[in-house]
Amino acid sequence: MKELRPYTRNVFYYETDKMGVVHHSNYIRYFDEARVDHLKQGEVAFDLLESLGILLHTLSLNCEYKRPLVFDEPFSVYGTLTKVNGTTLELDYRIVSGKTGEVNVYGHSVHCFTDSNMRPIRLKNKYPEIYDKFAAYVQPKKKEVKSEK
Amino acid sequence: MKELRPYTRNVFYYETDKMGVVHHSNYIRYFDEARVDHLKQGEVAFDLLESLGILLHTLSLNCEYKRPLVFDEPFSVYGTLTKVNGTTLELDYRIVSGKTGEVNVYGHSVHCFTDSNMRPIRLKNKYPEIYDKFAAYVQPKKKEVKSEK
Amino acid sequence: MKELRPYTRNVFYYETDKMGVVHHSNYIRYFDEARVDHLKQGEVAFDLLESLGILLHTLSLNCEYKRPLVFDEPFSVYGTLTKVNGTTLELDYRIVSGKTGEVNVYGHSVHCFTDSNMRPIRLKNKYPEIYDKFAAYVQPKKKEVKSEK
Amino acid sequence: MKELRPYTRNVFYYETDKMGVVHHSNYIRYFDEARVDHLKQGEVAFDLLESLGILLHTLSLNCEYKRPLVFDEPFSVYGTLTKVNGTTLELDYRIVSGKTGEVNVYGHSVHCFTDSNMRPIRLKNKYPEIYDKFAAYVQPKKKEVKSEK
Repeated sequence: MKELRPYTRNVFYYETDKMGVVHHSNYIRYFDEARVDHLKQGEVAFDLLESLGILLHTLSLNCEYKRPLVFDEPFSVYGTLTKVNGTTLELDYRIVSGKTGEVNVYGHSVHCFTDSNMRPIRLKNKYPEIYDKFAAYVQPKKKEVKSEK
Repeated sequence: MKELRPYTRNVFYYETDKMGVVHHSNYIRYFDEARVDHLKQGEVAFDLLESLGILLHTLSLNCEYKRPLVFDEPFSVYGTLTKVNGTTLELDYRIVSGKTGEVNVYGHSVHCFTDSNMRPIRLKNKYPEIYDKFAAYVQPKKKEVKSEK
Repeated sequence: MKELRPYTRNVFYYETDKMGVVHHSNYIRYFDEARVDHLKQGEVAFDLLESLGILLHTLSLNCEYKRPLVFDEPFSVYGTLTKVNGTTLELDYRIVSGKTGEVNVYGHSVHCFTDSNMRPIRLKNKYPEIYDKFAAYVQPKKKEVKSEK
Repeated sequence: MKELRPYTRNVFYYETDKMGVVHHSNYIRYFDEARVDHLKQGEVAFDLLESLGILLHTLSLNCEYKRPLVFDEPFSVYGTLTKVNGTTLELDYRIVSGKTGEVNVYGHSVHCFTDSNMRPIRLKNKYPEIYDKFAAYVQPKKKEVKSEK
């Protein structure tokens, strides 16, 4: 089982709101950025998927907000591929402040593979070599993460 | 029990992504816009809350994506205040296309009231008249919505 | 010469930044929203253009920021089509607060028509009926707007 | 005269629009990110300015769009401090693709220093040591950039 490196950057000014902290919708975008980075690490980059006519749709999303990030604060998104089967992909996320080391946000997302006409694709059957690349990164859901939520 | 009018607008161009549909992070922002509108309808507008030093933080968020909206598509956000107690506020959302009448996204959010130092406020005790305004709109969670998800 | 109705809405929470006012990048998006609305009023909606394979690219943009908008402030974008020729389209914008009546931002944008391969289209020759619809709204640049800047 | 290192990252998925390229409003945000990075390099980070009660407002902005960036394309923003005087700051920007080496966007922005009540500050008089840090990076406007536009 291969490990994914966390995705890291700092908070942008326009991501803060008048409360002086990151607007809660932006963490969803941080998950998105991390997912793109993780797929690239796993050699199944969006470019490759799209060149094969495979689209990745988001089916559901959960977020638990613990502590807000502030302007210019460095953060890391630790993503874990918790499940891949023929048609769907699931990830857990943990956003951690590079300044305090504390968890800011927990997240979970579910995605499905479709063709360009939005019809579901059975990845395992149709693109087994792509499926295998995903499978190499799957990690059983850690107990402590769940209880921590 | 008072009813909230849905919040309505059309999709903006910059809210679409290269898949040709609304990026999934933007629905979270639609919920936010609807919440602002709903609080105003209930005479507990953000302006009023902030003038009293009350901030509304988002604690958690869930989204189920059913069908994507496209550019310029009209949509309505039906928000329901499902719970208010001393310290937290919960809402359900349903985004419905004004073109097809179909549900695009289901959502749920949990919020807490804090003072400007991010310390939780017991709204019911400290601002009973504000609490009562929220309470007038609370609706028990509908069964059919749950099973539909 | 036909007049365009202004485009109107309120500021969203996530459009403010930690200075407590609208982040300056968002006014560019307000221009975009107004442009979509104006084209629709002129019966040359994006949908129609795209169904003909016509894309509208932005070539340049100027902004003068006078007074910032704040959360939930109502505003109107007054757009004027100052020029249309075979290949380009130019608009002036004026964002005016619905609360104070003062001008917040002046803007100007230049766009060109291309086909789906990004090759410029000579609208006047290829789609004269579309060109005529644009032409009906063209207003010579007002002197007072310029001096006011 | 000190040189500023360019600011570099890749395009995010949610920054693309249905034309398949970066929405033109996002380049304004890239300038913002680069400005934050440049101020940090020059040891006049936003944090420092804000701790002194100095705010930086945007007065005007110009953009010339040459070639759009696409999803995940690496780019660099080359910022140049072209002017600083007692009250205002001016920067030129050049966004360059890390893939093709071509210029995507030229930009220019003007900013002013204010106190927290939005009253202009004469930086040179009030904070000469901050002014000097800015002044060390000022570069006279290059001729070839202008003619290239």
